[in-house]
Amino acid sequence: MIVKNSRTFLGRGRYFQICVLPLIGLGILVGVAFADPLPSWNEGQTKQAIIKFVQVVANKSSPQYVPPEQRITTFDNDGTLWSEQPIYFQGFFAFDRVKALAPQHPEWKERQPFKAILENDMKALAATGETGMAEIIMTTHAGMTTEQFEKIVKDWLATAKHPRFNRPFTNLVYKPMLELLAYLRKNGFKTYIVSGGGVEFMRPWAEKVYGIPPEQVVGSSIKLKLEMRDGKPVLMRLPEIDFIDDGPGKPVGIQKFIGRRPVAAFGNSDGDHQMLQWTAAGEGPRFMLLVHHTDAEREWAYDRQSPIGRLDKALDEAHNRGWTVVDMKKDWKRVFPF
Amino acid sequence: MIVKNSRTFLGRGRYFQICVLPLIGLGILVGVAFADPLPSWNEGQTKQAIIKFVQVVANKSSPQYVPPEQRITTFDNDGTLWSEQPIYFQGFFAFDRVKALAPQHPEWKERQPFKAILENDMKALAATGETGMAEIIMTTHAGMTTEQFEKIVKDWLATAKHPRFNRPFTNLVYKPMLELLAYLRKNGFKTYIVSGGGVEFMRPWAEKVYGIPPEQVVGSSIKLKLEMRDGKPVLMRLPEIDFIDDGPGKPVGIQKFIGRRPVAAFGNSDGDHQMLQWTAAGEGPRFMLLVHHTDAEREWAYDRQSPIGRLDKALDEAHNRGWTVVDMKKDWKRVFPF
Repeated sequence: MIVKNSRTFLGRGRYFQICVLPLIGLGILVGVAFADPLPSWNEGQTKQAIIKFVQVVANKSSPQYVPPEQRITTFDNDGTLWSEQPIYFQGFFAFDRVKALAPQHPEWKERQPFKAILENDMKALAATGETGMAEIIMTTHAGMTTEQFEKIVKDWLATAKHPRFNRPFTNLVYKPMLELLAYLRKNGFKTYIVSGGGVEFMRPWAEKVYGIPPEQVVGSSIKLKLEMRDGKPVLMRLPEIDFIDDGPGKPVGIQKFIGRRPVAAFGNSDGDHQMLQWTAAGEGPRFMLLVHHTDAEREWAYDRQSPIGRLDKALDEAHNRGWTVVDMKKDWKRVFPF
Repeated sequence: MIVKNSRTFLGRGRYFQICVLPLIGLGILVGVAFADPLPSWNEGQTKQAIIKFVQVVANKSSPQYVPPEQRITTFDNDGTLWSEQPIYFQGFFAFDRVKALAPQHPEWKERQPFKAILENDMKALAATGETGMAEIIMTTHAGMTTEQFEKIVKDWLATAKHPRFNRPFTNLVYKPMLELLAYLRKNGFKTYIVSGGGVEFMRPWAEKVYGIPPEQVVGSSIKLKLEMRDGKPVLMRLPEIDFIDDGPGKPVGIQKFIGRRPVAAFGNSDGDHQMLQWTAAGEGPRFMLLVHHTDAEREWAYDRQSPIGRLDKALDEAHNRGWTVVDMKKDWKRVFPF
């Protein structure tokens, strides 16, 4: 009745301007102020720990304030930002490349480790061991220019599909982690990938998928050599390991490529253990997080016994030192963006 | 008289508000709009070429517009951002370290190349050749943690002085180049150092002196190894070359550390030749600049015959391809900030 009276009293246009518009405005303001920055994370200790860390570090009046230029954060990729089962996705890429190149190499039909891949015989492939894997990597990742390799990776991603989900591999990224990356960046943190994967396998798509530009991707690499081709300089990819960015290599990679110790590090396996230790050993507020794969239904469940992404020693240290452990099943409302 | 009448008519306070304040405001606006971004550069072709490139690239309505994330620029350090005569400043650092460490190594009094340094015998030092220099570098740059080395560099810079100018080495940076760095950053460019110098020799001061953070410094490096000391991880510096970021190594370093081709590159010697070629070979607008040391009075004059910072082949190519060449004597109003 009061509303009706007011409407009559003010007239329709004036009523809208004076009473309705301000309410809409207030609603938007409240919505923005209280918007959940991590909507795919269930409420609980894990989510609270993340938000508390960001508030402590980014709030200028906080006694533990960290200036923006020091807000370096590092993320493992395989198993932390996207899936890594049943094998690292870069493995699927290498196998597909062997199959694509096979017509030019008839001898591969009788030669391991190529024979095993062409016959989809994973047991025979495993028997070729590290030497076999190294030969596959070098055959598929070297012998072309950096620009040619970038195109090969992009073309593969545009068509290849994950066998379980029948979707492009770049769909198998974790929605809660995408939200976390965006939340950190919104609060002045710089987000880096520090992965055991090949740096030039990740750079062609990391910006589009994660919002992480090429210069913030640190990874394993093979050697490059400058050559002139038709009067134009090109960088040739050589079949020789340059740097392995895994385990004890991660703090080395961080120092080499970033030159600052991170304030927060995110991983999921023992390959990230030293990165988390290195991060924890710095002064001031620190945040160390492990993604624990506990959800066989929506993704995969694995830890101490897994040949891919084994999480054993790092999990013990996380429990002992109070690092944050994400229970994927419990902490994540959604896993993938689809 | 009119002014006097107006003052009388309006009263003093009102006169100030209505007539004087707007004029001050207008003055500031005009000043900001027409402020010279490169006041230490003399007017002329060189300065115009820089400003034209920035306008073409950063202006959204320009047909050659480049989005900010692709505005990567790379700067050599020695001879491009600071002086490099009579020897690279990192050489002074190494010699001073030999002298500081000598009391713990009495055998150096009789052993080359150390004997030569302790006796200031540059001729004997030169006779030890590359092997001698490598031994000095490894002795003075390896065998400590990354944190210890950072402190050693900072302590040295705080006290060491250049023999000709009797000033700290970080005073011998080029004011026109500091202005250029700031001008580029103001227009959305990302400024990187890509230097043959040691990356961990530059990072401790590059942010303060050039406004370039550690993660945007690319340089030569020795190997690092993760070790545990009293339960804390440290990175030990090993006496083994990891990467030489000079000549053909510069495009390799750019690809490894940045992963994007620069749109502009700045150097001063044949060691920057391939970096400029690599930059020039990209698509879209490009800018390649060489600092030519032509001013023996204010700085040094040297080019084709100099053992340090030789500029010969790159100078020929610059002339042939129309790259910008700074004539230090003619183009720079001032050289140093002091």
